[in-house]
Amino acid sequence: MSKTAGIIVIGNEILSGKTRDENSLYLVRELRGLGVDVRRLSVIPDELDCISPEVRHFSKSFDYVFTTGGVGPTHDDLTMDGIALAFGRKILRNPELESILRHYYSPDLVEGNLRMADVPESARLVGGKGMWFPVIAVENVFIFPGVPEILRRKFERIKEMFREEPFHLREIFLRADEGQIAGVLNGVLAHFPALALGSYPYFDNPDYSIKLTLESKDGSYVDNAHAMLLKELSKLSLTPVKA
Amino acid sequence: MSKTAGIIVIGNEILSGKTRDENSLYLVRELRGLGVDVRRLSVIPDELDCISPEVRHFSKSFDYVFTTGGVGPTHDDLTMDGIALAFGRKILRNPELESILRHYYSPDLVEGNLRMADVPESARLVGGKGMWFPVIAVENVFIFPGVPEILRRKFERIKEMFREEPFHLREIFLRADEGQIAGVLNGVLAHFPALALGSYPYFDNPDYSIKLTLESKDGSYVDNAHAMLLKELSKLSLTPVKA
Repeated sequence: MSKTAGIIVIGNEILSGKTRDENSLYLVRELRGLGVDVRRLSVIPDELDCISPEVRHFSKSFDYVFTTGGVGPTHDDLTMDGIALAFGRKILRNPELESILRHYYSPDLVEGNLRMADVPESARLVGGKGMWFPVIAVENVFIFPGVPEILRRKFERIKEMFREEPFHLREIFLRADEGQIAGVLNGVLAHFPALALGSYPYFDNPDYSIKLTLESKDGSYVDNAHAMLLKELSKLSLTPVKA
Repeated sequence: MSKTAGIIVIGNEILSGKTRDENSLYLVRELRGLGVDVRRLSVIPDELDCISPEVRHFSKSFDYVFTTGGVGPTHDDLTMDGIALAFGRKILRNPELESILRHYYSPDLVEGNLRMADVPESARLVGGKGMWFPVIAVENVFIFPGVPEILRRKFERIKEMFREEPFHLREIFLRADEGQIAGVLNGVLAHFPALALGSYPYFDNPDYSIKLTLESKDGSYVDNAHAMLLKELSKLSLTPVKA
């Protein structure tokens, strides 16, 4: 079984369409490449009573949880409070983070700057070496900022800790109608019930009108399903454009 | 109070990073422009026991629910079944949809094509006039396909039914640090508790490092908060780059 993950994007700016969420596509692709199965993505407002139950629910449901956004010194940065509440922990000022911030902002430091050192009790600082500011983690929840450049830099630093067996993917491209091949797909799934089989229609593509994706962590399982699928399609006189 | 909405994106291809979700950004921006407050966005797998509870939960929580993806004739198209299950309804073949499909696919119709006429009992067909295939709605849930071009064409047809009072937005761009202005933002919110006030840092922009957004459905409320905020910022010797 793959490790599973959930992503929680925290930010009114995404839900009101002011900002395009670039982070979830990045995380989803990175995690997939690492062999992690992302099971759910949620975009929620900057509100404690939205953040806290969602974090609790995700933390119980998945091996890893990644949050983006809502970390910073202003009133709408409620991610730390929401996560603390989710796990029944206090918010405490972390001395290591405080020292980083004092050094960075010196001599213009104002009290507001130190709010970024206030994190849930027993939070862990992950991947600190060589990073300006480490990733903060609580239980299985990894907390990232919303600014895409910073999120990427941080994720790059720690991503190897999530790596496991890769997924094996094969694709088939067809000129056909989905209704025409639905029975064939069901037939293949009856033989390969553990196959992740996707069928996607394309309406504006000159070369093909269906993309089929076959996936599993077991490479030979995918190859065998792929071979059976090609054979069944040939019985309908369907030859892939690419396979 | 604004009408609220939730968006459910159904599709393994999004969660595995194979396809970029273009639909939620489109819907979020359209709905915001119509005056509707999108409160939550969820991306979930093509699985009945994920779709059904999410639809039930969203339907109870928001005025409108929009689903995208998972409609079509193949095994991974489970949105209709999930919505039927959410509301305890049967799936029935809709005669009007069946007739549209028979006409469209004639003379090459196969049974698989007709699966798109199988919808939850008492589903409504919305905005049918002039559309090849209408939007299907069950209770407050509006069901859209995942193909972006088709989703947009369909939403355009029915969007005016969701229009209400617009949001009023003002923005302020500053060269400053968020920690420095956190106190001022709290002060403004104490006077304007109903203001939707966002503060967003930018690290790579040559012109400004913070964008503030002020929003409400009451235009003069936003204007008054905006005036107070500018006055308080000027006390810190902060002059907006743009306001």
